[in-house]
Amino acid sequence: MTKEIRTILPPEERVGYAVIGLGELTTEELLPAFRLSGRSRLAAIVSGDRDEALQKARQHGLSDADVYSYEQFEELRGREDVQAVFIVLPNSLHREYAERAARIGKHVLCEKPLSDTPENAEAMVRACREAGVRLMTAYRIQYTPHHQLARELIERGELGRVKLINSVNTQVEANDGQWRLKRELAGGGSLPDVGLYCLNTARFLTGEEPYEVFAYTHSTPGDPRFKEVEESVSFILRFPSGIIANCLTSYGAAQHRALTVYGEDANLSLDPAFTYTNLRVVQASPEAATEHLVREVDQFALELDHFSMCVQEDLTPYTPGEEGLQDQRILAALYQSAEQGRPVQLERLEGRDLFRGTPPVQPDRQRS
Amino acid sequence: MTKEIRTILPPEERVGYAVIGLGELTTEELLPAFRLSGRSRLAAIVSGDRDEALQKARQHGLSDADVYSYEQFEELRGREDVQAVFIVLPNSLHREYAERAARIGKHVLCEKPLSDTPENAEAMVRACREAGVRLMTAYRIQYTPHHQLARELIERGELGRVKLINSVNTQVEANDGQWRLKRELAGGGSLPDVGLYCLNTARFLTGEEPYEVFAYTHSTPGDPRFKEVEESVSFILRFPSGIIANCLTSYGAAQHRALTVYGEDANLSLDPAFTYTNLRVVQASPEAATEHLVREVDQFALELDHFSMCVQEDLTPYTPGEEGLQDQRILAALYQSAEQGRPVQLERLEGRDLFRGTPPVQPDRQRS
Amino acid sequence: MTKEIRTILPPEERVGYAVIGLGELTTEELLPAFRLSGRSRLAAIVSGDRDEALQKARQHGLSDADVYSYEQFEELRGREDVQAVFIVLPNSLHREYAERAARIGKHVLCEKPLSDTPENAEAMVRACREAGVRLMTAYRIQYTPHHQLARELIERGELGRVKLINSVNTQVEANDGQWRLKRELAGGGSLPDVGLYCLNTARFLTGEEPYEVFAYTHSTPGDPRFKEVEESVSFILRFPSGIIANCLTSYGAAQHRALTVYGEDANLSLDPAFTYTNLRVVQASPEAATEHLVREVDQFALELDHFSMCVQEDLTPYTPGEEGLQDQRILAALYQSAEQGRPVQLERLEGRDLFRGTPPVQPDRQRS
Amino acid sequence: MTKEIRTILPPEERVGYAVIGLGELTTEELLPAFRLSGRSRLAAIVSGDRDEALQKARQHGLSDADVYSYEQFEELRGREDVQAVFIVLPNSLHREYAERAARIGKHVLCEKPLSDTPENAEAMVRACREAGVRLMTAYRIQYTPHHQLARELIERGELGRVKLINSVNTQVEANDGQWRLKRELAGGGSLPDVGLYCLNTARFLTGEEPYEVFAYTHSTPGDPRFKEVEESVSFILRFPSGIIANCLTSYGAAQHRALTVYGEDANLSLDPAFTYTNLRVVQASPEAATEHLVREVDQFALELDHFSMCVQEDLTPYTPGEEGLQDQRILAALYQSAEQGRPVQLERLEGRDLFRGTPPVQPDRQRS
Repeated sequence: MTKEIRTILPPEERVGYAVIGLGELTTEELLPAFRLSGRSRLAAIVSGDRDEALQKARQHGLSDADVYSYEQFEELRGREDVQAVFIVLPNSLHREYAERAARIGKHVLCEKPLSDTPENAEAMVRACREAGVRLMTAYRIQYTPHHQLARELIERGELGRVKLINSVNTQVEANDGQWRLKRELAGGGSLPDVGLYCLNTARFLTGEEPYEVFAYTHSTPGDPRFKEVEESVSFILRFPSGIIANCLTSYGAAQHRALTVYGEDANLSLDPAFTYTNLRVVQASPEAATEHLVREVDQFALELDHFSMCVQEDLTPYTPGEEGLQDQRILAALYQSAEQGRPVQLERLEGRDLFRGTPPVQPDRQRS
Repeated sequence: MTKEIRTILPPEERVGYAVIGLGELTTEELLPAFRLSGRSRLAAIVSGDRDEALQKARQHGLSDADVYSYEQFEELRGREDVQAVFIVLPNSLHREYAERAARIGKHVLCEKPLSDTPENAEAMVRACREAGVRLMTAYRIQYTPHHQLARELIERGELGRVKLINSVNTQVEANDGQWRLKRELAGGGSLPDVGLYCLNTARFLTGEEPYEVFAYTHSTPGDPRFKEVEESVSFILRFPSGIIANCLTSYGAAQHRALTVYGEDANLSLDPAFTYTNLRVVQASPEAATEHLVREVDQFALELDHFSMCVQEDLTPYTPGEEGLQDQRILAALYQSAEQGRPVQLERLEGRDLFRGTPPVQPDRQRS
Repeated sequence: MTKEIRTILPPEERVGYAVIGLGELTTEELLPAFRLSGRSRLAAIVSGDRDEALQKARQHGLSDADVYSYEQFEELRGREDVQAVFIVLPNSLHREYAERAARIGKHVLCEKPLSDTPENAEAMVRACREAGVRLMTAYRIQYTPHHQLARELIERGELGRVKLINSVNTQVEANDGQWRLKRELAGGGSLPDVGLYCLNTARFLTGEEPYEVFAYTHSTPGDPRFKEVEESVSFILRFPSGIIANCLTSYGAAQHRALTVYGEDANLSLDPAFTYTNLRVVQASPEAATEHLVREVDQFALELDHFSMCVQEDLTPYTPGEEGLQDQRILAALYQSAEQGRPVQLERLEGRDLFRGTPPVQPDRQRS
Repeated sequence: MTKEIRTILPPEERVGYAVIGLGELTTEELLPAFRLSGRSRLAAIVSGDRDEALQKARQHGLSDADVYSYEQFEELRGREDVQAVFIVLPNSLHREYAERAARIGKHVLCEKPLSDTPENAEAMVRACREAGVRLMTAYRIQYTPHHQLARELIERGELGRVKLINSVNTQVEANDGQWRLKRELAGGGSLPDVGLYCLNTARFLTGEEPYEVFAYTHSTPGDPRFKEVEESVSFILRFPSGIIANCLTSYGAAQHRALTVYGEDANLSLDPAFTYTNLRVVQASPEAATEHLVREVDQFALELDHFSMCVQEDLTPYTPGEEGLQDQRILAALYQSAEQGRPVQLERLEGRDLFRGTPPVQPDRQRS
């Protein structure tokens, strides 16, 4: 991985963020990503665990005054050096904090999935729009050089006409009382968490929206982890151009994160496709299999800096709230299909990139 | 690939075969496989193209008297050195030739799929049973050292509990007037030809039978190749133990033949999984990805010699007619699902390897 | 692996061979290769172990009269259906049998290395020339589609100017009293057996001859396997165009058989490079790594059929005795360098392919 | 790549560094590495290009007062927040700046190679010792989780007795007037720059010191890049335990950075072995090839933080000046061998890790 981000602004010129929530994603990925970013600055931490927050604040050069409890959230209103919040909380809390942020005039970067239901996601979009703040769904995949290259290769016709997509995203979720296994907090199991990548990347790479979906869910009987949320989901998406995407996701199977796009002339595989690092892009025809060697850039820094650029230059993010909302609608249709044991129709939407904003700046792809 | 077959009998002690049909599979794969086999001998050729048949006969050390037209088929009755026939004809002709072979007392090795409909497949099984001849569906996958190893690793618990299967088998079928694109001869498109491998290998590796299936079919509008048969099929199989298998097959997408079994501890990928050569078996956990290096043996020679052994030692083949018939029933259910736009139930069968006979002798796996 | 060989002649029109020696190479690789070949026919077996020879003869459709003892070798003179011999004996016996074959007018295909010393190799070349029979060193690498492709890619300029070669060929040789560990029979240890591939393939791919060499040999003190012959050799070859080849070979290290050619624009790796199967060709530049997918054809059948074609069409084989003799001279120079602890000069030869004859027919490279 | 570094201290408690030299390595790798480090802080920049230095200073949160010219170097004496310097200058300037740093009481982290000659390297070691400041050669390889794992696997006996090493490090150096192609500044060509990795990693993985070396150098005649320094070097190292290492390096061949250790039971390949990212560790036996999946950590941050730890806890670095000096002695012997056309002896040193200090803290290896 390289640490190159095209634009590096002096710290005081970067967009200041209050990070809300100090889970593993925040401490392991997001706080380091702030250190690598070029347009973003960690300015405050909002957490229920004051001790840990103080420690992290100090480690990252903040003062104790930069630490807030959830109750103190609205005190950020007066912090002019905090232009945005980064919501890293359980899914069902996203709406509340997006609305509270909008009310105090802060732009909102919100972890995926955008919310727990389409209704709540829609409320978030509305709240931010009405408050005149930007809302971005914190997706990674749309910002990596590997996926950007994959989309380019497809658009350039390297695969010929695209026919099929196959995608898998599985992992083993440990039963440690975490919120991801509680329906009220997560809104679902493997599907909205990791299965979302299969759905979302299929949409991103084709630029299309599915008009019909089918899903099976399954949980191992007696497994205490899956009392509230589903373990595995097998699902199919049908796109207007005829493309069919087969997807598989699970919280109970060893990790595999992959996606292949099948064209009439060649196939394009990302394996791994959704990990934080070590992504690989391989184009295969009957004569040759070519791995495109692409420089890795910190994915979280890329997404952060894209939002900062949008905030600074008043642009719609590439993955705005609307993009997250559309995924939420499809997730709901998938659950409906699984429950009713039949395919479910969605509104048939023609056109490309219907929910996406300004494309991200593409970092240099050449490896050092 | 090694050419080692454990038992090599003198030519005159091997089972003599009449090969019926001189398509590409016969000339490119089966005739060479006879040369490599240890228990099987090419003894006669039945073909509509006498000139080519004579040429192939001479190349393989046969005389002109070993060449028969389709009409002359019954003359094989008197050939004591011909104990078996190998049917390599369009699917819808399998039944006729199996029945004719049974009537003249010859054992039947029949190319996959066993037939074009479950009814015809059933008739074949019945005809051979009543005539007291052996019937084997000429599957390859159940006889390769790679798939045998894969099954062993799963049975040994290397993956932990198996949760999911994902399989793809695609290729581009050229529009050259061939019988595979004609419904009357093939009985279907990509599904019974290449999609069958996904289905069949999932059944083989789990030892289970699906109780419910769902399928979508799709053909590119206006593509003249797919006027009679379907281009692509996306399908899902549900197994009694809870395993879900996602499958994807096509005649219109660049070749990819792969299968992954997902367990709670590790995953096992065969990629390629269904090619004639270059099979790879990779076991992956979060800590390591291990490719098992397995000696390749000619797959057609393995399947041939297995049937010869069954003929000589009066055993039920590992993939008898009943195994092919079961696949045919599931294929029919998949088409029904695609047509009706809903899941289709199959008889719920408990127990393992319900349709399989004597396991094959396993060749030495160590590479030279 | 495919079994395709372009030309398949009726058995009686093929070149008949007497195989001399029934070691593992003969039984595991050469006898099966005869079954796959299109221009070659196993016609007789010469062995000291009459029982095993009889068994192999029967397995391959020969009669007891086709089995000869070493003493009976000259009786082959009268066998008009035996046009050639294939010498598969310990290296130091190659000369005797080549001379005896020449005397009875049989063409000679001789296992590599051609002999144990340059003097004996030279005598073999002379004997065959004087008797008017063809002599071919039974190399494999010059006949595989993978190495042919590699040479083409280099010649076509895909790598830019070639600068360096790196090659390794190691394996663990068990101490089972075999002749390869006895100086008198083998003439050396790992170098003439497996190290020869590094040398030979570097010469083949560049088309050049080294003018200076350097070598270190090493044997683990106290290892009973290496009392007579060396365990490992590290050696360097310098070619007239400036190319330097680094080579490493051993009888005491786990198997690795690989070769990379380094050009100014790209590199070409064969890994494995020298195995009987599973060869891989990968072209790598800083932007991409491309594996060329090449159909595998039985290497021994290719070499056999090339010699048969040369015999039938009166052509100089691509790897005639002279090619094996040149390797033998370089091997001797390498041992001299190791002994004297300094570089050794060879005659500086300009020009390409100085010792090679008619290039082989190239089989179809596309995988099935 | 993960950004995890075990210990993250508040910025004001970290070791402050003055970076000397603003070449591409500094701007692309070292400045970002400071942002990721947990014990190190960029405190000053010393450069001849004031404008660029000011820009980089601002980007990284420094003030204009933190920028120094080379002449102002000694003004750092009074900067108590600057405990160390990081010398990133052409090789022949290392000695001067190490001595100047030692004189003003600053610890010295010096880019590799430590110097241009053994004499200058020795002077650096002496100057720092006498001034009571720490000196570390800024090697990366000794600090990555991948190489640490490789060493562990070897020590644990996974390969059996180690017999051979093969290593390559090549790249194309553009002719842009850069100092690396000038003898007076670089002290040599590909050998001390990239060839050093082959040498250094062989020493690190075996823990041994070579007692004899041999080298060939070659430069393409007429190539203007190689008028002063050599293009390619082929070299061999002999170690006391009998291990032979074959090495190949070049400034004129497409990039390949790889190393394999050959044992009697298995081989261990790092390919790539020396890149900044995407390292791969594969253990291969005849039965299986296993890629160990290891979490990538920024290599420069690891080396930086190791030195900071040594400064803070008063420890000898794992790769102190003495380690760099030993490499410098071997490099000199290699050039002598190439010049004299014969092997060169080095002092025979028994014992392991003779020049290494406190082993680094090992980061968590598990991938996220």
